[in-house]
Amino acid sequence: MRLKTKLLGIETGGPLIVVLNPKIAAELDLSPADRVRVMAENKYCVAIANISKHIKEEEIGVYEEVQRQLNLDAEQPITIIPEERPSSITQIKKKLDGLELSKDEIFELVTDIVDNRLTHAEISALVSAIYTKGLSLDEIEHLTKAMAETGQMLELGVKPILDIHSIGGVPGNRITLIVVPIIAAAGLYIPKTSSRAITDPSGTADTMEVLAPVTFNITELKEIVLEHKGCIVWGGALDIAPADDKIIEIEHPLQLDPTGMLLSSILAKKYATGVTNIALEIPFGPGTKCTKIRAAELEKKFKAMGGRLGISIQCVKIDGSQPVGNGIGPTLECIDALQVLENLPNCPIDLKNRSLFFAGLLLEEAKKAPKGKGLALAKEILSSGKALSKFKEIIGAQGGNPDVSSSSLQPGKYDETICAEKNGIVQAIDNDIIKKLGRILGAPYNKGAGIYLKAKVGTKVKEGDPLFTIYAESGRKLSDGLVFVEANNPFKIKEKA
Amino acid sequence: MRLKTKLLGIETGGPLIVVLNPKIAAELDLSPADRVRVMAENKYCVAIANISKHIKEEEIGVYEEVQRQLNLDAEQPITIIPEERPSSITQIKKKLDGLELSKDEIFELVTDIVDNRLTHAEISALVSAIYTKGLSLDEIEHLTKAMAETGQMLELGVKPILDIHSIGGVPGNRITLIVVPIIAAAGLYIPKTSSRAITDPSGTADTMEVLAPVTFNITELKEIVLEHKGCIVWGGALDIAPADDKIIEIEHPLQLDPTGMLLSSILAKKYATGVTNIALEIPFGPGTKCTKIRAAELEKKFKAMGGRLGISIQCVKIDGSQPVGNGIGPTLECIDALQVLENLPNCPIDLKNRSLFFAGLLLEEAKKAPKGKGLALAKEILSSGKALSKFKEIIGAQGGNPDVSSSSLQPGKYDETICAEKNGIVQAIDNDIIKKLGRILGAPYNKGAGIYLKAKVGTKVKEGDPLFTIYAESGRKLSDGLVFVEANNPFKIKEKA
Repeated sequence: MRLKTKLLGIETGGPLIVVLNPKIAAELDLSPADRVRVMAENKYCVAIANISKHIKEEEIGVYEEVQRQLNLDAEQPITIIPEERPSSITQIKKKLDGLELSKDEIFELVTDIVDNRLTHAEISALVSAIYTKGLSLDEIEHLTKAMAETGQMLELGVKPILDIHSIGGVPGNRITLIVVPIIAAAGLYIPKTSSRAITDPSGTADTMEVLAPVTFNITELKEIVLEHKGCIVWGGALDIAPADDKIIEIEHPLQLDPTGMLLSSILAKKYATGVTNIALEIPFGPGTKCTKIRAAELEKKFKAMGGRLGISIQCVKIDGSQPVGNGIGPTLECIDALQVLENLPNCPIDLKNRSLFFAGLLLEEAKKAPKGKGLALAKEILSSGKALSKFKEIIGAQGGNPDVSSSSLQPGKYDETICAEKNGIVQAIDNDIIKKLGRILGAPYNKGAGIYLKAKVGTKVKEGDPLFTIYAESGRKLSDGLVFVEANNPFKIKEKA
Repeated sequence: MRLKTKLLGIETGGPLIVVLNPKIAAELDLSPADRVRVMAENKYCVAIANISKHIKEEEIGVYEEVQRQLNLDAEQPITIIPEERPSSITQIKKKLDGLELSKDEIFELVTDIVDNRLTHAEISALVSAIYTKGLSLDEIEHLTKAMAETGQMLELGVKPILDIHSIGGVPGNRITLIVVPIIAAAGLYIPKTSSRAITDPSGTADTMEVLAPVTFNITELKEIVLEHKGCIVWGGALDIAPADDKIIEIEHPLQLDPTGMLLSSILAKKYATGVTNIALEIPFGPGTKCTKIRAAELEKKFKAMGGRLGISIQCVKIDGSQPVGNGIGPTLECIDALQVLENLPNCPIDLKNRSLFFAGLLLEEAKKAPKGKGLALAKEILSSGKALSKFKEIIGAQGGNPDVSSSSLQPGKYDETICAEKNGIVQAIDNDIIKKLGRILGAPYNKGAGIYLKAKVGTKVKEGDPLFTIYAESGRKLSDGLVFVEANNPFKIKEKA
């Protein structure tokens, strides 16, 4: 059937969708979510056919994704014919039935996701199937490789390639900004790709962006890493494991995070960047993604998957029940990390020790230090100022200003300090409240917004002592934060008996 | 935040969706699938916020569903504020975790579906959860009542109210067109609402539409039934159990048909129309929706649910492995039904007997005939011509031409007869092939398209004897059908030894 392009001028947010008049859809015997092959000059794609009475019989409504793929102009003639549904829908049903998918079936599924051939409803059914029925180790391996191989692969041609990764969930935990320069300063390769926050006050990429651009393509990334050994960039622009972003977009709003997907999501990116050794932090406890039991289960699965993928994975299960460092929010986290790298005496000691521990682990993994000597070497690189120089070199290489220091950074100019209302000991700092508060204050979009902790768990406080300061870039957001804190104080103080 | 309406002039197909510029979304801290409250003058709704760079910062893109709900004009100022996600998303997660949902939680879920507050991805996760984790009888009861009570309820103020229903799947099975007039002619109420076909060659509503309009609102329906006792109308326009259509639209493309949903889907409509007694046909066997085992399981569950809903349900499990009647496709099925009602000697005897059986059952259920005497009464009503008069009366009441007869109806004018290629006995007629062939020929959209069987299972045939005729409304569709038949002959002939 021959129709005339009507550009809708809007994205679907993924799936390739065209819109037909109900009469045309009936004529072609199309049911909801049926597909059509859309042909324009010498290009074609398979799109999902929606139906709308606002489209005339001689027209075909075209969303941005299809327009871009076929390079369509308004009124351009298009030919469409009905097309079978992708067979990956059968795979989704199979997984819902609890059956194991083969390597080929998983590759087909992932390819269809990457090529936008599945609807959001279909991807959601897949995520639900994986959530309820789980994935075998074989399936996780195939899924990981499929997600990596359907995107860009980084080939540095060097070994070893190190990586530091945290399962996440603990606010303020920016060890990456310290570990990467220590490792790179030791002459080892660490091409770190990070994510942006979805619901946290900041992701590593959001925080690094305060200091330098983080958006690069794979060629630029390769140049930076080969010359400077390390980088801290945003993974999202690299087209590495692109299926992952599309799946996260569906699973996140549903608050689903099935274990098999978590492993594949993390490891696909490592596999695609040629990583040989990972130091993997698994925080557990209240306000993290893990209970102690799930942390142990994850360690076992990561170890197993590492063996299958040829990646050595050192898992470190660690109490994550309070924030790491003092700052939460992009700028405040940069101040923390720079204070550590600058060897300032008042730097956040928990962040420093945790970073040194992981750096030491990686130095031993890479055989740069003998067993048991990694921590000392890491300390030496940090205290000598080599890590700071390397960090500034990386900032410069990514196009930022290398003449930055912890004292030159300014958090949001609207602030308010919350003080203890009684004498006692800080018994807990609620991660979930801290994260929500950070978002309300405007982080990560407002780089200067966030929370600065003046006390940690175990600190003795007297009535009137400052507990934390909140920062915002507008009076309105500061006031929103204050209202929230009034009802949700993240600090739990225990009065002494 | 204050924005200017940009009408997108297209439907989403359900969910209330607005589109914001990425900067505005970041400013409001909106993640994918987050909600906003959209306020215009004295109306408001909660919509899902999509993000698109094609929308200017001062604009808000508005899909048809939101436009209609708020009665918006182009450029009209709108205020938006972020809104919490509906808590029914937590319910979906709970069901995915295999937990039982309470009555209140199920009502909330169904209300959100009806009000278009959930995305397709969210409804898909719900369907997947029900498919993998099942529903308890309590949950099915709550779901059924919630689906009924969130839509229109028919209150006739009479008793009993009868209903004939088939789980479906068997092509040509139009007993409804015969049972309804017999029952109504007996002076009993039978307000039959039917569906249109999604992938079958015809649904009861599609077939009845050959003879009379089937689209009515609930007030019109009530008038027709109170005056004429019976009707055969399309359920889709009545706003009865509207959640069901929205769920079917998601589950159908995924080929999911979880038992709990099947029960609720059928019974919600009966409950909403005040039905007191149902004769329920459960066909089983190849090419139906059921194995014999599932049929038995369904019978048990329907019985149990009937008790909970105060509806007496007589289940009849019946072999459905070949088509019922001779015609498949809207017009051809009408010819079959009229032949039976006209008491023609060459009418399809299987359709006649099956209809009489179910009519007899309902007559006994309604105590119009004593136990064991229902069939005889049904036969009497049919052979006396009262059923035919009642059917014509109903056709007239629905706005059709009552002067119709089986011989006045014309199937598609392009036809071709397929003959036996050898002597033997018809061993099987494949329902799935017949259904697919019917669609290829253009049914149900082309009312005259379809298949007319000249032999049934057990018929002795000689080489060259006609097996079936295919009808289409265009030469192109006839030829498509012939190509399909060439590769997929629905008839299996066994040569005699």
